[in-house]
Amino acid sequence: MQTNQQKIQVGIVGGTGYTGVELLRNLASHSMVEVKMITSRSEDGVAVADMYPNLRGIYDLQFSVPNIEALKTCDVVFFATPHGVAMSMAAELIAHGVKVIDLAADFRIEDLAVWEKWYGMAHTGADLMKNVVYGLPEYYRSSIKEAKIIANPGCYPTSILLGILPLLKAGLVEPSSIIADGKSGVSGAGKGANVAMLGAEMSESFKAYGVNGHRHQPEMVEKMHDITGTPVNVTFVPHLVPMVRGMESTIYATLKQDVSQEVIQELYEKAYASEPFVDVMPAGSLPETRMVKGSNMCRMAIYRPAGGDKVVITSVIDNLVKGAAGQAIQNMNIVFGLDERLGLNQVALLP
Amino acid sequence: MQTNQQKIQVGIVGGTGYTGVELLRNLASHSMVEVKMITSRSEDGVAVADMYPNLRGIYDLQFSVPNIEALKTCDVVFFATPHGVAMSMAAELIAHGVKVIDLAADFRIEDLAVWEKWYGMAHTGADLMKNVVYGLPEYYRSSIKEAKIIANPGCYPTSILLGILPLLKAGLVEPSSIIADGKSGVSGAGKGANVAMLGAEMSESFKAYGVNGHRHQPEMVEKMHDITGTPVNVTFVPHLVPMVRGMESTIYATLKQDVSQEVIQELYEKAYASEPFVDVMPAGSLPETRMVKGSNMCRMAIYRPAGGDKVVITSVIDNLVKGAAGQAIQNMNIVFGLDERLGLNQVALLP
Amino acid sequence: MQTNQQKIQVGIVGGTGYTGVELLRNLASHSMVEVKMITSRSEDGVAVADMYPNLRGIYDLQFSVPNIEALKTCDVVFFATPHGVAMSMAAELIAHGVKVIDLAADFRIEDLAVWEKWYGMAHTGADLMKNVVYGLPEYYRSSIKEAKIIANPGCYPTSILLGILPLLKAGLVEPSSIIADGKSGVSGAGKGANVAMLGAEMSESFKAYGVNGHRHQPEMVEKMHDITGTPVNVTFVPHLVPMVRGMESTIYATLKQDVSQEVIQELYEKAYASEPFVDVMPAGSLPETRMVKGSNMCRMAIYRPAGGDKVVITSVIDNLVKGAAGQAIQNMNIVFGLDERLGLNQVALLP
Amino acid sequence: MQTNQQKIQVGIVGGTGYTGVELLRNLASHSMVEVKMITSRSEDGVAVADMYPNLRGIYDLQFSVPNIEALKTCDVVFFATPHGVAMSMAAELIAHGVKVIDLAADFRIEDLAVWEKWYGMAHTGADLMKNVVYGLPEYYRSSIKEAKIIANPGCYPTSILLGILPLLKAGLVEPSSIIADGKSGVSGAGKGANVAMLGAEMSESFKAYGVNGHRHQPEMVEKMHDITGTPVNVTFVPHLVPMVRGMESTIYATLKQDVSQEVIQELYEKAYASEPFVDVMPAGSLPETRMVKGSNMCRMAIYRPAGGDKVVITSVIDNLVKGAAGQAIQNMNIVFGLDERLGLNQVALLP
Repeated sequence: MQTNQQKIQVGIVGGTGYTGVELLRNLASHSMVEVKMITSRSEDGVAVADMYPNLRGIYDLQFSVPNIEALKTCDVVFFATPHGVAMSMAAELIAHGVKVIDLAADFRIEDLAVWEKWYGMAHTGADLMKNVVYGLPEYYRSSIKEAKIIANPGCYPTSILLGILPLLKAGLVEPSSIIADGKSGVSGAGKGANVAMLGAEMSESFKAYGVNGHRHQPEMVEKMHDITGTPVNVTFVPHLVPMVRGMESTIYATLKQDVSQEVIQELYEKAYASEPFVDVMPAGSLPETRMVKGSNMCRMAIYRPAGGDKVVITSVIDNLVKGAAGQAIQNMNIVFGLDERLGLNQVALLP
Repeated sequence: MQTNQQKIQVGIVGGTGYTGVELLRNLASHSMVEVKMITSRSEDGVAVADMYPNLRGIYDLQFSVPNIEALKTCDVVFFATPHGVAMSMAAELIAHGVKVIDLAADFRIEDLAVWEKWYGMAHTGADLMKNVVYGLPEYYRSSIKEAKIIANPGCYPTSILLGILPLLKAGLVEPSSIIADGKSGVSGAGKGANVAMLGAEMSESFKAYGVNGHRHQPEMVEKMHDITGTPVNVTFVPHLVPMVRGMESTIYATLKQDVSQEVIQELYEKAYASEPFVDVMPAGSLPETRMVKGSNMCRMAIYRPAGGDKVVITSVIDNLVKGAAGQAIQNMNIVFGLDERLGLNQVALLP
Repeated sequence: MQTNQQKIQVGIVGGTGYTGVELLRNLASHSMVEVKMITSRSEDGVAVADMYPNLRGIYDLQFSVPNIEALKTCDVVFFATPHGVAMSMAAELIAHGVKVIDLAADFRIEDLAVWEKWYGMAHTGADLMKNVVYGLPEYYRSSIKEAKIIANPGCYPTSILLGILPLLKAGLVEPSSIIADGKSGVSGAGKGANVAMLGAEMSESFKAYGVNGHRHQPEMVEKMHDITGTPVNVTFVPHLVPMVRGMESTIYATLKQDVSQEVIQELYEKAYASEPFVDVMPAGSLPETRMVKGSNMCRMAIYRPAGGDKVVITSVIDNLVKGAAGQAIQNMNIVFGLDERLGLNQVALLP
Repeated sequence: MQTNQQKIQVGIVGGTGYTGVELLRNLASHSMVEVKMITSRSEDGVAVADMYPNLRGIYDLQFSVPNIEALKTCDVVFFATPHGVAMSMAAELIAHGVKVIDLAADFRIEDLAVWEKWYGMAHTGADLMKNVVYGLPEYYRSSIKEAKIIANPGCYPTSILLGILPLLKAGLVEPSSIIADGKSGVSGAGKGANVAMLGAEMSESFKAYGVNGHRHQPEMVEKMHDITGTPVNVTFVPHLVPMVRGMESTIYATLKQDVSQEVIQELYEKAYASEPFVDVMPAGSLPETRMVKGSNMCRMAIYRPAGGDKVVITSVIDNLVKGAAGQAIQNMNIVFGLDERLGLNQVALLP
């Protein structure tokens, strides 16, 4: 057992939301880290266990006003904030050798003009972008090891990129044919007071939203291009599911050639054979979001319906874990040379 | 006020399931019908209000063993049975002038070889098919008026056909490009004891099912062909939503030519201008299943994301009403020359 | 068919919340009323069907700024506002012969000192109280007929008073022994943006609230006293159920004497024999909230567990209908001498 | 790190239900045990990870037909079976020094006449009862250490006993005044195919059940008597909550004397000060079931509403963890002299 001095010192900026509590929940079982501080302007002095009683008896920690000097004493700082915050503090942190992992969107899109269009504000961190790596370990692991700033991916891009990339990389599907029909539980909308997310509004109902455009679309398009070297076209429609956690993406693509479902299955199994958090299920399986609830796993299955020219992938994650806090911890583990699975060994809660 | 003798005498075969109770719930407000008998072998003698306490004080009716002689005294018989039953009794009923409305699948597919492949049994009603009309009023109304047997459409085909047909009929989209991503509440699986449909299994989880093939796919393909005269190709993936009622379909198609969203919007508004149960919502709307809960409405919206070559339609119905019992009553109203809205004036329950 | 001039002209003040939309949903099927105006300061000019799309095609009505002169032209005005509003406008309305039905709490408690303590504001309508009748038709029907102002009961008091009063009136239970364990769906909390009522907060969880005191407790205590002439003591604990609609109350009382379950059952059946909206279910029944969803019914059952000295009543209502808008319409029907069931014939939505 | 030979060898009989998968989920993080076998007649040869995909990659174990010889090679055998099974196999197992922990009801009630009345079968294990200890660690810890057979408590008794016993032991409340209003998620009904537990039946509805008698009532009554030495009277009404996991009990008792809420709070805090899995929350707290979801904690709060003569306790557990599998593991840890918290360190999943 290490002493605390040897443990990685973690700071969390903006910890009152769902990604904040999820970082704490997962890190509670991480043997090599100590959460040193968690900030919130509005909740200064409040015990985290008072806001999140599932943490009673586990953390003896209070929210504090964010303080850059204090944060510099950490080894790594997670930003669980709205976008715009991380870009304002990252420079000073990395200058002091502090690793930055941003769970918001500040560094997710390399093309800052695109970023500014979709996020509706000026991007003030152009100089920082050279230090940024997109934190999808399955495709950027070696760069993540050296990164100073990690842009933790969006939840939809995580589930969709993991689902389609083996086919795209193999050149088996038309890059312009991709349709991604995404579905998310309501925790993805965060903890802000919002009439549309009231239990009386979202329960027992299902709807599409953002049909004419969602910020995660340019993110996934850019990364598909970056990873495969080929421009792609993605039609993406997100939907809201009346449940708290979980994300499913059904991805459709047109095959360029006649390739059997068995060959595609094998392609996927090989692609992810050594990945601790991607599970290619046996042919014929039907992934359910509850199979990954509370865990960092992505489970997926591949189909070629009726032997047609379409391939279909269904991919499930927990939007708050592999889609946010869990993936952030996985990235931290890579950066610090630890076993990627530390702090992420929770078995999905089923039923 | 009419006397009961003048009212349309209704029989329901197999009334213990969800479509049975929905027929009763809606017919309770229908001023021109009397439910004369409702059959169930297993529940013979049980009051319907004992099985469905929402009907206490409304129906003084007991389940009885199905009896063809008694059924012949009805004006119309609804079959709310598993498939295979209606085809065995319809000949005798229509020979006596009784109209048959089948809520199961016996008569939905004209190509009986296709039917037998998907339903796994011999079709014994080939002679009857000439008397059958597919009961989608918006596209077969004039034939329905003259039909002896009405094949009440499947829930997914209802929501998807209503959603895509204006574009297909106008020849604006590639008929081979259609992708339909459907989502249904769990009442669609019926009231049979089934571990996968337990509350502890389906709650707080989302999944695709039937990815490699679902019986509603050949049904919708045949009707698209029949209505437009053009063969089509549909990739259809159904999903299970953790809610009781409601169905949403997100339909994707590739435009053949550059046509503006405004033009498509106008096309849809015109197509359904006189339809009492199709509501084309204003551009930019986001239909939610709760907007039609308990009602016979289909509400839809049309999008052309990012001005690309894809058009997206989202269409919502209550799977038990417009997707089953409500549409059956609408068909009955047409057959008997009544106002189509009789018995179907319930406002959706929101919240 | 009457002309509109002959219909009762209805105004609704504060119609953007759930009781407002429920008034509209139910009144849509009421043959004798016309909704003339519905007010909202914040939504002035917005079509009600834009805020509540279940009403598309049903109401061609816009929210307007509340205007006392316009409201005076109505026959009846419903207040679906926060407490404090009705008491400020009622005097002028009743002076012009307009009936006032307040769905908020302004007039529910006769003892204004008690009211002020629980509602935390001064009561400015002391002069009005002589015109007020508590709108629980089953116990105040004859007074309601003559009332100028009707205090529509709270949802918990409705379900608990209907459940316990036959026993209390018959003097069979200790008046100091009453324990009422209430459970409500989340729509009871209204449509305000409130973090604790987010879907991600209330789903898949159950909790008590207001254990040390809830405003509905003094209301039910006062009415029990008023109706029976005997002071009572009620321990009341409300709970939040992860569902949208529905309220169940389990009421415990100590029998004064050994009286059989059969006698109690008969007492209840007689008490409510002629009530259109109270259903005493057969002995051994287990009322479920879905048996009344969307309807104005209260269903209940009575037990005497293990022949002990306790009697238990379980009573279910839809908190938005019999617990709010439906009961208000029932009261309106009584005031105007109409059949109480007009506008309230919806069959509960099950499943 | 121990080798497997040194680890406690665990057998699970009847592992296909929810308590079975919960034993596996929790034991996966237990450093000192190895699950050696898990039995199921019907699923012989099926991989547990095929039935419970949340266990994919975690257990390489198949269901096998139960075999008493094989079970004798274990150190401890958990029975996650219907009642009646453990009593037929326990004698032979304990004769070979195998500890038996029964998650069913076979050994929960010492008075076998009472047991037979409530469970409707003959009890064939009278000789075994001298070896049985009731597995509620907070009140039977020292006996559990020496027990050969542990009767793992029912879920309702766990939440209610923990909630009321400090008051009962202190003699502060009337032993005949106890009313326990319990609420359970649907996983408590198990994984059997059962129409009443279908998602379409139980969702969005709330109901009482078993009002006239539930098997957990005699169990809790006997243990209250055993622990306090005083006969008690408990009126117990269970309810079904539309959620998967979680149990809340609201317990009412009449104070014998005027004792302040502060004194009661202190009594509880002292009673459970050293308990790893009981959390007495600060005065004024409102325990929610989600605060313990997936964890072995019981959280509770105490109230004295309006300074009256009633005390109210609300107590929450996860019915599958502290109410079943977690408590069984806690008992195993005690029996084998391990840290009680091993395998039980999961933080509740919130949101």
